[in-house]
Amino acid sequence: MASTEPATVTNKQIIFSGYVSGFPKESDLKFTTTTIDLRIPERSTSILVKNLYLSCDPYMRICMGKPEPLSSSLVPPFNTGEPITGLGVSKVIDSGHPDFKKGDLLWGVVGWEEYSVITLFPYSHFKIHHTDVPLSYYTGLLGMPGMTAYAGFYEICSPKRGETVFVSAASGAVGQLVGQFAKLMGCYVVGSAGSKEKVNLLKTTFGFDDAFNYKEENDLNTALKRYFPDGIDIYFENVGGKMLDAVLINMKLNGRIAVCGMISQYNLVEPDGVHNLATILYKRIKVQGFAVFDFYDKYSQFLDFVLPHVRQGKITYIEDITEGLESGPSALLGLFHGKNVGKKLILVARE
Amino acid sequence: MASTEPATVTNKQIIFSGYVSGFPKESDLKFTTTTIDLRIPERSTSILVKNLYLSCDPYMRICMGKPEPLSSSLVPPFNTGEPITGLGVSKVIDSGHPDFKKGDLLWGVVGWEEYSVITLFPYSHFKIHHTDVPLSYYTGLLGMPGMTAYAGFYEICSPKRGETVFVSAASGAVGQLVGQFAKLMGCYVVGSAGSKEKVNLLKTTFGFDDAFNYKEENDLNTALKRYFPDGIDIYFENVGGKMLDAVLINMKLNGRIAVCGMISQYNLVEPDGVHNLATILYKRIKVQGFAVFDFYDKYSQFLDFVLPHVRQGKITYIEDITEGLESGPSALLGLFHGKNVGKKLILVARE
Repeated sequence: MASTEPATVTNKQIIFSGYVSGFPKESDLKFTTTTIDLRIPERSTSILVKNLYLSCDPYMRICMGKPEPLSSSLVPPFNTGEPITGLGVSKVIDSGHPDFKKGDLLWGVVGWEEYSVITLFPYSHFKIHHTDVPLSYYTGLLGMPGMTAYAGFYEICSPKRGETVFVSAASGAVGQLVGQFAKLMGCYVVGSAGSKEKVNLLKTTFGFDDAFNYKEENDLNTALKRYFPDGIDIYFENVGGKMLDAVLINMKLNGRIAVCGMISQYNLVEPDGVHNLATILYKRIKVQGFAVFDFYDKYSQFLDFVLPHVRQGKITYIEDITEGLESGPSALLGLFHGKNVGKKLILVARE
Repeated sequence: MASTEPATVTNKQIIFSGYVSGFPKESDLKFTTTTIDLRIPERSTSILVKNLYLSCDPYMRICMGKPEPLSSSLVPPFNTGEPITGLGVSKVIDSGHPDFKKGDLLWGVVGWEEYSVITLFPYSHFKIHHTDVPLSYYTGLLGMPGMTAYAGFYEICSPKRGETVFVSAASGAVGQLVGQFAKLMGCYVVGSAGSKEKVNLLKTTFGFDDAFNYKEENDLNTALKRYFPDGIDIYFENVGGKMLDAVLINMKLNGRIAVCGMISQYNLVEPDGVHNLATILYKRIKVQGFAVFDFYDKYSQFLDFVLPHVRQGKITYIEDITEGLESGPSALLGLFHGKNVGKKLILVARE
């Protein structure tokens, strides 16, 4: 409940300069300092949180684009002059909501700032009950990206033991988990990534059967044929464009493509043309776009599944942590140049 | 069973000259005359049929392409120097198979010739039991195209009353039925076709809510927005390429695209690039390729559904019949230039 004493503090923020065409620049995200009253007004059902970790996710590029109905049907655009929003792990400072009290930990959408006022709606925020695992994992493994990998792989791809799985952007927040889920399932899994370091990570740390650096391949079709001489049953799509085109002609009969993201396309003014769509017909392929929030009713089921594996060390998770909100813009922008190694996030405050 | 007297007759045939690049020409399909013994050898389980109707279907262009694993996984290529194959309605002349006897009518794959020897396998041929409807309907409404429309619309698109449906190549063998099924379901349905005559047919004979001539539209996106201001729930895809690209950005959330064919692409050496695939992600769209033969176990269920509607005049079917096997090549080639109005077929013999 609201305290009686005012407590106004400074609140650092990352402000959106306005919509972006092409690759975003640091000037599109401006650091500023304002103040905030650390109390929730009487009768408000909002909560006020201190942000501990902020997540850098590829979908945020979509929110930077010119507002238009197509992309907005997945995620709302950022508001010019306001802090950008993203997923974060936060601690409740004050609460007007019966389900949350001071000191509670939660994850969900917050502003890129030190303190945020949150209006709750169903599945907008999740209380954190398990703190024997790193708290930062709730931006990745145990948060939205983890749930994305879980829903996308198990619900959309309907995997079967022995099937062949290809994952692009495989060392990213979602990809590294899809590969590990595929191995748990008894699938053969190959990932692509954009550096030797990432490729090594896939093969050694995450247990992919094989991996390749797409930047070193002249012909992605040839590369895929090398790793999948008999074709691909399941493609977990994170990149789009030329990779999708090459994957299509390597799909097996009744293959499934889960469209989780198309990061290679977000910064293009004119998206790449994909030519091999007739394969969808020839091979009777299912291509299915999905959004993680349609599956949030399965979040506790997901935790029941994944937490034991994490505690037993059967699932590992690599994070790439930048410290300080001020470093947020360059951390986020680095994502679109593949600079991150593993799940990219920002440590804003230790508690 | 085999008769004791030899009975050798002439057998006109349409022979495949060899694989085709670009639009097929009449010289790719050569008329010839040979002879055939009208008896099945002792102990053979084959059957010998007289072909009454031969069906011209868009998929046959795929069989004319350079043999390669991709397209061959849908349909086998034609063999050079042999009669092309297609679906037909035939009458049994002699049979070594216990399920068929002389005089039986059936539909299934035969050679483009007057008489064919058929080796039966499961679902390769269907005995015709209902002859109170035109026999030619078993090349269309009551045969493969009808079953394609039924499986594609009901099984792949999961339609719901009140949804919006768009059908391309809508006056063709499959499209005209999809539109009528959609109306039976209580959907709003619009079709595209390539001439004023076909557009009129859609609106007057088949009961589409609206229709347009895609050749008269400068911008397919604008055309689709005119007919679907709130977007498309279901797209029944028969053409591919530019139409698919325009449809994608007009799809509604959780829309479904059944990929039945891509006739605009079959004759291209380099297929069109499709740019708007990110919509699959933004709108969580399912794009599903399918092949009718995966649904042939539902054929009798389909007949139970469709025959009463046909007998009561609630479903109509327009055929475009050419007489004489000699005219077969030009009839088939006309399909790839949109010359047919309705289901294209060839009358080879009246009985």
